[in-house]
Amino acid sequence: MKVRVGVVGCGVVGTGTVELLLRNRELIRKRTGVDFELVKVADIDWEREREFHVPEELRTTNYKEVLTESDLVVELVGGRDFAKRLILEAIDMGKHVVTANKHLLAVEGEEILMRAREKGVRVGFEASVGGGIPVVRSLREGLVGNRIRAIYGILNGTTNYILTRMFEEGLSFEKALKEAKEKGYAEADPSLDVDGWDAAHKITILASFAFGRYFPFSEVYVEGIRGVESLDVDLGKELGYTLKLLAIAKMVDSEVEIRVHPTFIHSEEALAKVSGVYNAIMIEGDFVGKTMFYGQGAGSRPTASAVVSDIVGVGVSIACGHAPEITPVNWEEGTVKVRKNFYSRYYLRFSVPDRPGVLASISRVLADFNISIAAVLQKEMVCEIAGVKGPIVPLVILTHKAYEEDVQKALKEIENLPVVVGKPVLIRVEEEAE
Amino acid sequence: MKVRVGVVGCGVVGTGTVELLLRNRELIRKRTGVDFELVKVADIDWEREREFHVPEELRTTNYKEVLTESDLVVELVGGRDFAKRLILEAIDMGKHVVTANKHLLAVEGEEILMRAREKGVRVGFEASVGGGIPVVRSLREGLVGNRIRAIYGILNGTTNYILTRMFEEGLSFEKALKEAKEKGYAEADPSLDVDGWDAAHKITILASFAFGRYFPFSEVYVEGIRGVESLDVDLGKELGYTLKLLAIAKMVDSEVEIRVHPTFIHSEEALAKVSGVYNAIMIEGDFVGKTMFYGQGAGSRPTASAVVSDIVGVGVSIACGHAPEITPVNWEEGTVKVRKNFYSRYYLRFSVPDRPGVLASISRVLADFNISIAAVLQKEMVCEIAGVKGPIVPLVILTHKAYEEDVQKALKEIENLPVVVGKPVLIRVEEEAE
Repeated sequence: MKVRVGVVGCGVVGTGTVELLLRNRELIRKRTGVDFELVKVADIDWEREREFHVPEELRTTNYKEVLTESDLVVELVGGRDFAKRLILEAIDMGKHVVTANKHLLAVEGEEILMRAREKGVRVGFEASVGGGIPVVRSLREGLVGNRIRAIYGILNGTTNYILTRMFEEGLSFEKALKEAKEKGYAEADPSLDVDGWDAAHKITILASFAFGRYFPFSEVYVEGIRGVESLDVDLGKELGYTLKLLAIAKMVDSEVEIRVHPTFIHSEEALAKVSGVYNAIMIEGDFVGKTMFYGQGAGSRPTASAVVSDIVGVGVSIACGHAPEITPVNWEEGTVKVRKNFYSRYYLRFSVPDRPGVLASISRVLADFNISIAAVLQKEMVCEIAGVKGPIVPLVILTHKAYEEDVQKALKEIENLPVVVGKPVLIRVEEEAE
Repeated sequence: MKVRVGVVGCGVVGTGTVELLLRNRELIRKRTGVDFELVKVADIDWEREREFHVPEELRTTNYKEVLTESDLVVELVGGRDFAKRLILEAIDMGKHVVTANKHLLAVEGEEILMRAREKGVRVGFEASVGGGIPVVRSLREGLVGNRIRAIYGILNGTTNYILTRMFEEGLSFEKALKEAKEKGYAEADPSLDVDGWDAAHKITILASFAFGRYFPFSEVYVEGIRGVESLDVDLGKELGYTLKLLAIAKMVDSEVEIRVHPTFIHSEEALAKVSGVYNAIMIEGDFVGKTMFYGQGAGSRPTASAVVSDIVGVGVSIACGHAPEITPVNWEEGTVKVRKNFYSRYYLRFSVPDRPGVLASISRVLADFNISIAAVLQKEMVCEIAGVKGPIVPLVILTHKAYEEDVQKALKEIENLPVVVGKPVLIRVEEEAE
């Protein structure tokens, strides 16, 4: 039994995929009984340098050749418009598809997966989340018996590297970002990573399979790490917390909170210890409890490992005559609501003059909004605030669980207190991610 | 489409499985399109207390009823003889089987899996390793494109609990074991856990799928934690290491080392931080790099989660008309050799009198066997050794990588030196498990 595989897009991940399919072809054939033959690789530029030499006879600049000659098409061009056209064209031709395109899946996953279902072909996307970590498969198959309660993910290596450097070395965001660029961990335009979009795409995909509906990407709350100050990383550390860009999808009162934002978690917890460019995903189910998956979330070879696991999974199902795809996405038929009024703990930092009555007036406002204080930290350190005279100190308040809307309203009121200088800082604290 | 499921053995895991199948039946049907109906549960004792009430109409004391009425038989009786008879009988009747029986699989896996292949049925055993952690599926499917280099596992919760208590609180082995028994983490007869057998069964199963042959269980090196002294846990801690009962399967020079023994790993590494009854498995592949899976390695509900993932996997393949099982075990057809002469770093502790020339004579013997010293720690602490007069101090030598046979020979020679009192302590140090 042979499956003809074609790859469109021979960039970093494409090159890794080609290398894996060629190097480990015999191993995979022995393991599965199916021979995966790489028949064609399309790219518009065959001049640029690659880590692995793609044999001349496999190369083409015309993606249509890949579509024609393969049973299974691997889309690794990235981006939205061309990738979408390509995938739909392949599906319409009755080809199975494997893709690593999280952006496309998060935003247009419903259209693509519905079309695939109509045409009776499969779409694999293990590589779209968590690089080489087999998290999509684990969620859809390994934990298939569980009602999922929550997913907590460190899904973006670039931001985790930056936050790790800020935490460990006290670097500013700008310095850590510069370092990440120098090391090749951040793009020249780092917005997709740094502003949280990449992590948000990934958590949207995971949430869909966990909770059984397509969630519109526009309903996902996204806040990146560009505004994070090293002062807050340090103060949090002192309170026993580590700052992570956490992607969260969890059930609260039969609704789902889907959100990506800088989050404090206890420094002793497993997720807090995931440092550098590594990814980790903690999944909580009603029977399995908490289980965590950890590994390299990006890079040529790890991502190729995930792409190939999909190629093999789909290929083996071709060999058996089209297995029904486990876990259709929309098994709750859109009934699960996205919840915007988060219920969380909060770290709030105010810049205030060091004089009596300040804490009293701030805590009075919090009490008015039913926000209960868990801890207070006022440091004998003087901040310099542009345009403000006199000594200003940071006052940190950790709240018990409270509703986001109440906290936002309280902050607006506190911001207008004469004793408070500038905008308060709000960072959410997650205690369940343990 | 409906699949009739029967369970034999309604103990801790059986009860959890029954609960899951009944509680989440509708959820699983929505997700997979297949209805898994629990039709019968066999146990010899319906009087004992259970965490979940098994409906009277499902109960039987005659396992033959389960065989007759089900499409898929779940074996959860444990032990060897009856479980084996039951599984073979089910296979011969053309029933698919799901089991959590690691002991049986490690020792008689070849016979069972060959028979299943002959009869065209599937055998699922995700629950045999790592409780709720979907590690078997991840290894066989998620990492199918990878040449596996190594597996490092903390596969036994009981021993990890004991070692965690020894490490964190300085308890002796006996005290920590007593505590584990009181908490229900250790059996009255703890030998299967404490002497390493349970972990050895599990690593044998993982090694088979990683390296493509059935490894005879008798060829696996097994050393438990019964002889571990808290002095060594403490001295290791001081040197930056944490002691774990590590199950290791790794390729060295085209041969496989499969071994379970107390092992020092760097305290900063992810595996070192896995504490209490948790399990974790680190898998290294040529493309994916290092990836780690973490969760509850035992218990009623987590193990039930794994059992049900197999029920669903097998059931969906029934629905599609018997998918070929991915990853046959013996794709290397027994060609991979088990290597006994390990290549490792070593922690060696000698009890010696505190006088000149001792280190010289010990290190001369090590040099004779080409064993290079990486670090030495001699403490100003006096040990009391029964029957020995005068002050005796512990001398620790950390070696660079050396061959096990050389180290064993050197130890024999050192043991006979007049300056060395009693038996030297040998603990292997693993630096790749990072």
